Amino acid sequence: MADYETGLARNAANHQPLTPLLFMERVAQVYPQALAVVHGAVRRNYRDLRDRCVRLASALARHGIGRGDTVAAVLPNIPEMLECHYGVPMAGAVLNTINTRLDAATVAYILDHGEAKVLIVDKEFMPVVRLALLQAKAKPLIIEVDDPMAPAAAQAETLGGMGYEALLAEGDPAFAWTMPQDEWDAITLNYTSGTTGKPKGVVYHHRGAYLLAVGNVLSAEMGKHPSYLWTLPMFHCNGWCFPWTVTAQAGVHVCLRAVRGPDMWRLMADEAVTNMCGAPIVMATLLNTPEAEKRDLPHQVKFIVAGAPPPEAVLAAMQAAGFAICHVYGLTEVYGPSVVNEWHAEWDAKPAHERAALMARQGVRYIALEGLDVKDPMTMESMPADGASLGEVMMRGNVVMKGYLKDDAATAAAFKGGWFHTGDLAVKYPDGYIQLKDRSKDIIISGGENISSIEVEDALYKHPAVAVVAVVARPDEKWGETPCAFVELKPGVQATPEELIAFAKQHLAGFKVPRHIVFAELPKTSTGKIQKHVLRSQAKEA
Amino acid sequence: MADYETGLARNAANHQPLTPLLFMERVAQVYPQALAVVHGAVRRNYRDLRDRCVRLASALARHGIGRGDTVAAVLPNIPEMLECHYGVPMAGAVLNTINTRLDAATVAYILDHGEAKVLIVDKEFMPVVRLALLQAKAKPLIIEVDDPMAPAAAQAETLGGMGYEALLAEGDPAFAWTMPQDEWDAITLNYTSGTTGKPKGVVYHHRGAYLLAVGNVLSAEMGKHPSYLWTLPMFHCNGWCFPWTVTAQAGVHVCLRAVRGPDMWRLMADEAVTNMCGAPIVMATLLNTPEAEKRDLPHQVKFIVAGAPPPEAVLAAMQAAGFAICHVYGLTEVYGPSVVNEWHAEWDAKPAHERAALMARQGVRYIALEGLDVKDPMTMESMPADGASLGEVMMRGNVVMKGYLKDDAATAAAFKGGWFHTGDLAVKYPDGYIQLKDRSKDIIISGGENISSIEVEDALYKHPAVAVVAVVARPDEKWGETPCAFVELKPGVQATPEELIAFAKQHLAGFKVPRHIVFAELPKTSTGKIQKHVLRSQAKEA
Repeated sequence: MADYETGLARNAANHQPLTPLLFMERVAQVYPQALAVVHGAVRRNYRDLRDRCVRLASALARHGIGRGDTVAAVLPNIPEMLECHYGVPMAGAVLNTINTRLDAATVAYILDHGEAKVLIVDKEFMPVVRLALLQAKAKPLIIEVDDPMAPAAAQAETLGGMGYEALLAEGDPAFAWTMPQDEWDAITLNYTSGTTGKPKGVVYHHRGAYLLAVGNVLSAEMGKHPSYLWTLPMFHCNGWCFPWTVTAQAGVHVCLRAVRGPDMWRLMADEAVTNMCGAPIVMATLLNTPEAEKRDLPHQVKFIVAGAPPPEAVLAAMQAAGFAICHVYGLTEVYGPSVVNEWHAEWDAKPAHERAALMARQGVRYIALEGLDVKDPMTMESMPADGASLGEVMMRGNVVMKGYLKDDAATAAAFKGGWFHTGDLAVKYPDGYIQLKDRSKDIIISGGENISSIEVEDALYKHPAVAVVAVVARPDEKWGETPCAFVELKPGVQATPEELIAFAKQHLAGFKVPRHIVFAELPKTSTGKIQKHVLRSQAKEA
Repeated sequence: MADYETGLARNAANHQPLTPLLFMERVAQVYPQALAVVHGAVRRNYRDLRDRCVRLASALARHGIGRGDTVAAVLPNIPEMLECHYGVPMAGAVLNTINTRLDAATVAYILDHGEAKVLIVDKEFMPVVRLALLQAKAKPLIIEVDDPMAPAAAQAETLGGMGYEALLAEGDPAFAWTMPQDEWDAITLNYTSGTTGKPKGVVYHHRGAYLLAVGNVLSAEMGKHPSYLWTLPMFHCNGWCFPWTVTAQAGVHVCLRAVRGPDMWRLMADEAVTNMCGAPIVMATLLNTPEAEKRDLPHQVKFIVAGAPPPEAVLAAMQAAGFAICHVYGLTEVYGPSVVNEWHAEWDAKPAHERAALMARQGVRYIALEGLDVKDPMTMESMPADGASLGEVMMRGNVVMKGYLKDDAATAAAFKGGWFHTGDLAVKYPDGYIQLKDRSKDIIISGGENISSIEVEDALYKHPAVAVVAVVARPDEKWGETPCAFVELKPGVQATPEELIAFAKQHLAGFKVPRHIVFAELPKTSTGKIQKHVLRSQAKEA
């Protein structure tokens, strides 16, 4: 055996912390004049964007912010939010992006739990932040972003803090910013939406951010100089790491304060957009834009969808409109997407409903995720790859979080047995692709039989009048639980509960047919996910 | 400051060694039926390729090979060589690919220094290996590869070893192969060609192999399912890590025993090749193929060139023939390519000679290389980015070798000051792109003035009769050294030394004009690099 260790240790020449921060330095050197960010009238190249990021790091350092400090941000998808993804960790600090649709109490909880030293906030969200600060123990330095594209009603808002541009003016673009000491150092903090209990603080590290950012390039087949439309909130899993991915590929960040159909079509056409991401609701918004406000696409746009499988009709309409769809799946705990529906060219020849069924599967692991399996959470045995046996989705690898901040019990439970327990229930097909059947807590147990709420939803989605549907358990004296469907109808279309129940009977086993149908607008999170816990409460009254 | 460490340590769920070996398992699961390797009549899919790799690992383990053992290979670019890139490290062992054109004494030295326990050898190279084994102390287990496409004259060769297929038959495709214990574990051993002194054993680790393999995808803009023609020897820096890159992207490995023009054109057309790599000599071989043996390309082929900048005329001819050229630069110590001439779209509009001049520059760091600079090797200060100040190219980052095996002094010298010293001299332009001017040892010092041999070569390349030229120092009593040019003329073209000297005078300062011109076939390494040390000896006699 040869000695491959002695005299062959890590040193400064052959080992550096993996970090996405160097992507910005590299692109600013190689393509300084390339367009980096577009937002209304603002068009900045990479030299300017890089300098603003380093100024931010420098100014934060002057205010005493350094390694391990938390900098919170309540911002929409505007250039300042992108700058925070570089400038904050370049100061050695940890970026905590906060969902802009949270209530004040939750924001207060997050500021306290994350120990925010600085809070960067957009005028539009100052009312809720003002209330949050009244409740919070944390007294962060307030930095106010004055975006000219913020709603007019918000322009007069202030929390009496320092202006973002004034802060940047204090910074030095020649500042020697802080490389992580170790690639395991925290880079960001993301609170899970927390449908029950307190939100948990998911800690990301530099290594994982680098690996998922690069992994996105492989999964999305993203070439150099993409034009990326920011439909996915950057506060959500750091925009699936695309603030780093797009920069690595010297692409254009096309900002978007709010996901509105006409704005998206205009920007796709004017900025020659190549890539975008979002939940199916973003697709619906695109498709439901009045024809007069749609624009011709300059070329095929790659749309990465997650959050729910794209329904067959939506998929067909998107493809007809010039989009290439890629379905991914992930969670906050795995940096956003870590599973991808790898498409096989030969599937293109299949009928539309078969294609949709194949694309509805969540798929296989990203290259950046080393392990993905469906397991029995009690025994940790792999479930058979039979397309039927239900188990829990488990993941392991370098794009799994460090853990939950200050919550050893939750971290230990999440990592029990050396795998991350997603809480999602799925089957595994003979070809190894997984398909979600439900969240553990969303399964409906009726007369001792498990009913997948997703299966019932899929059946109702086939009805031509149904726009959006969510099925939850409704307590039932006889059966324990029965399925209850909440339905949004398409504009200008009528249907009765009886009609939908009759339709469902044609597609589902009897015990899976919903006993109740409720027509209502569905409560959704800011990222477009339907809030089933709200519906479960409503179902009790239905 | 929030505590981002306590309770947030590495564990089996969130930290795995980076390794390219998992690429094979993933593609075999996701695309088992996809074509993986083509070699003559052999066409194997990824399920079969994966099973053969794991069988190899299993069989090696049965023969007692494990962690830290060296398995040497003397193989051309055939399927068995590709399998070694997975099967050997899957046994925990280290793959030592040996240049097939080395002499027996050097092969013996490498087998002894690397402590080879197994030697896998193709029939064609048995004569030299037989001699090497007579000289070597090492007594490796001999595994003989019987490639039907080996030259007829070699078919009867044997060293009395075990057949490769018999070895594989002993292996179990269900073998639980060995993940590296740490991503810093050695994966391969590559001896530098050693133009002077004994060859040095460059040790690669799993982490670097993963990162460069993925970095290649970004630099080459390689989509999914590429068809890769194996023109670059896999024994050379592990084929720049493309055995792992192509597999990560579920591509086809199109094997090639020998770089011959008609074979390359046939395979490019028949296998719809998308990517290939090589030295400029490969381009020349392609272009000089008789027209009758050329084929129409199915689409643009991406050609990554390294070893020397592509001359203007070759560049133009290649582009006219349907190739897209990407110029990269690297060394054995950095896994092959680690610097890339990132092209700017606006340069396409420049005249041909300006485009060639821009493409002649080596460029900027790969995303996978964290640091690249031109420094004064004494003071370690950065040289000015003025396109004129000559310094040494220095690199640092995760795609720099572990070090030289059993050579602490050489390792320490290479890593002095926390940077890898390449030994190449270069200038840095105001845009940060570097351009090689010479190897330290290739610089010519005439009357106290430095002369870049590359500058003299560039001038002579402009002469229409010159096919290949190499300039070296010739000892001179008066001047110390003067430039001496060795020239290969194009077929059927005539020129005299006086004519070339007169031509050089029009393009070079007087002291840089070669005093001697020698017409001769230039000695080249197996990877197409001109062996200047041989020419330096000949120059003394010229």
